[in-house]
Amino acid sequence: MRSEIIAVGSEMLTPFRQDTNSLYLTEQLNSIGVTVAFKTIVGDRRKDLVNSIRIALGRVDILIIMGGLGPTEDDLTREAVAEALSLTLRRDAAQVAALHARAASQRMTMPSNNLKQADVIEGATILANPNGSAPGQWIDTVYKDYRKLIALVPGPPNECKPLFDAQCLPRLREVVPPRFIATRTLKAAMIPESQADKLLAPIYSTYTDVDTTILAHAGDIQLTLLCTKPTLEAAQERVDELAEKMEEALEDWLYSSEAESLEQIVLYYLGLRQATLAVAESCTGGLIAQRITSVPGSSRSFLGGAIVYSDSLKTAFAGVPADLIAQHGAVSEEVAKALAQGIRIRTGATIGLGITGIAGPTGATETKPVGLVYIAVSDATKTEVWDRTFRGDRKRVREWASQYALDLVRKRLM
Amino acid sequence: MRSEIIAVGSEMLTPFRQDTNSLYLTEQLNSIGVTVAFKTIVGDRRKDLVNSIRIALGRVDILIIMGGLGPTEDDLTREAVAEALSLTLRRDAAQVAALHARAASQRMTMPSNNLKQADVIEGATILANPNGSAPGQWIDTVYKDYRKLIALVPGPPNECKPLFDAQCLPRLREVVPPRFIATRTLKAAMIPESQADKLLAPIYSTYTDVDTTILAHAGDIQLTLLCTKPTLEAAQERVDELAEKMEEALEDWLYSSEAESLEQIVLYYLGLRQATLAVAESCTGGLIAQRITSVPGSSRSFLGGAIVYSDSLKTAFAGVPADLIAQHGAVSEEVAKALAQGIRIRTGATIGLGITGIAGPTGATETKPVGLVYIAVSDATKTEVWDRTFRGDRKRVREWASQYALDLVRKRLM
Repeated sequence: MRSEIIAVGSEMLTPFRQDTNSLYLTEQLNSIGVTVAFKTIVGDRRKDLVNSIRIALGRVDILIIMGGLGPTEDDLTREAVAEALSLTLRRDAAQVAALHARAASQRMTMPSNNLKQADVIEGATILANPNGSAPGQWIDTVYKDYRKLIALVPGPPNECKPLFDAQCLPRLREVVPPRFIATRTLKAAMIPESQADKLLAPIYSTYTDVDTTILAHAGDIQLTLLCTKPTLEAAQERVDELAEKMEEALEDWLYSSEAESLEQIVLYYLGLRQATLAVAESCTGGLIAQRITSVPGSSRSFLGGAIVYSDSLKTAFAGVPADLIAQHGAVSEEVAKALAQGIRIRTGATIGLGITGIAGPTGATETKPVGLVYIAVSDATKTEVWDRTFRGDRKRVREWASQYALDLVRKRLM
Repeated sequence: MRSEIIAVGSEMLTPFRQDTNSLYLTEQLNSIGVTVAFKTIVGDRRKDLVNSIRIALGRVDILIIMGGLGPTEDDLTREAVAEALSLTLRRDAAQVAALHARAASQRMTMPSNNLKQADVIEGATILANPNGSAPGQWIDTVYKDYRKLIALVPGPPNECKPLFDAQCLPRLREVVPPRFIATRTLKAAMIPESQADKLLAPIYSTYTDVDTTILAHAGDIQLTLLCTKPTLEAAQERVDELAEKMEEALEDWLYSSEAESLEQIVLYYLGLRQATLAVAESCTGGLIAQRITSVPGSSRSFLGGAIVYSDSLKTAFAGVPADLIAQHGAVSEEVAKALAQGIRIRTGATIGLGITGIAGPTGATETKPVGLVYIAVSDATKTEVWDRTFRGDRKRVREWASQYALDLVRKRLM
């Protein structure tokens, strides 16, 4: 069955914003055997919106309309869908009550325009939105003699995704003929994309029934394998067979065979070894700690650490001798080692991670270019240091450096 | 004049790839006064492509079609445009020669299907593509009694952008009445989107000649004002007038009138006051420090701080008495205050920021729900503490908490 995704919002027709939810929705739709045939991005103009909806209903069976469900004057999706289908809107009393309750729980008075979020299209099912004030709507209708399934979902990703998963997918599954899809996602760190492709293309190109997609970002390579077969066993077998060959080829670049993030893997190994980690970050300025603590439950293995942006904090929090900094410079092998060792001892962690570098765009010296980063890992037995020079802007240098640092901790734990 | 961008390619209908050229093209089109009214993404199916082209010609004056110009069987844009316009294709001898010359210069033999790249639509002008083998095409035609301008441009960004700039923009400028565009971007923190709209809609809705776009993310509101007029002065005057009224209405929610980020503004005020900042982060786990240090030059005002994820680090790095934690709990007003005060004194910073909370999904107690966050700001004169309960998942709670914390520092500095 073919679907279309309409993303609603004038901001996505500016040079500044892009729809990204549709990538997620496409993945979910594909997983139940629905292809996406068109994506349309349309602004907050009622006429354009009605026109786009009618066009979509004329060419696909399943229509997902994202955004335009909020409380503002620009939020016109409900009105436009009703107009396109020649249906009426009614204000739902239960939704009105829910909006009042929500405002009260946040100790806010509710602006009257918020109530339009309680407007429901004739015959539509309300899709509860636990993460926002605007509910979604589900319409199973007939348009020009054909059955059409229409989902109105909110635009913010944290509302759109859970609502789609919990309330649209199960409804679609009932309608779409069952197909069996097996997938696997392998992840590898710090291998250049071209090298990964050179290594893996001879392997995956012989599996013409498995779709292999390689995505690379800041030292992180994600390989997604997907196979569709009449039975799940047949699909799984092909995916697993290819995955095994690729895992072998990737050697210890591979860090996950189950799509976990690098920070999840580091925390997993810390737990396994009953070890704890502390960090002393200079150039990454909290990025490594932030990545680790983004994982729920990270407090079991991650103690915390210090952001030692100024030289005096390198001394105060990680015990780096001031004269060591004076002698070698804050960006040096010696200071990285002292940071790792110092933070480990100060915090009582099993492993200390120290990182110092020049994120740019300024700060380079004659011998130390922008992008130069020293990373040290320390445990009770030894303290080792590595250096790398990353290309690109401040953001990219920091992302690569945090990735490399987490990967070095992973390797120490293995 | 209104335009549509059609991005052609089945890969952009997978979960893995997205059109990004259109952001660039939109910027260029806007710069000469052409708005983008629709974006359509369509796969490599001839029927779908012809359908999309006809729809676009029915609703806009200017159509940019990107991609599908290569040599493979899937490259169908030339054929589809010809079909949509009921025009013929002819093989251009000069283009055939150019393809042969290009292959020879790369010492490659040319597969015969490559020649389809020399097919030119009846009446079209060839747009030379110095960075690739497939030229673009320019069509100035009449469709259902209206003049339409159609550009076929290659998909790869390094071919698309220079070709569009050098050969499409000048042609569009000749046709589009000269327009001048003025823009302003205002930013505000921690005002709910619906409240911002209620406050601002009565103002901006009277400026029908200025486009106002509101974007909201995790406590950050961005308002982009755009006005097109026959002279730049006239456009600027309208934008500035509206901006001034909105600034006044936003009161101290407004933190920037020039599109700066909140972290840039905090650093700006720290510099102005010759003040320094240090942070002690528990639930945000480095996110606040990471945001501040993402700004180049932040080391001038940001000393660093501590990620005090474990209770013992709250004591070790920010001097929070262990019995204070035992008495009130790590997530409490008292501990937040002690963190802010302690980190300020330990680091010698002018301002100390302390934050502790329950990011979730676990960790809630009977009296303390997931999302509860205490934030304290301390300077030599006083230490104040605020609490808020944010809704949503771990990521959202942390993003909102970091935004609120930065905003509280901003307010202390003002």
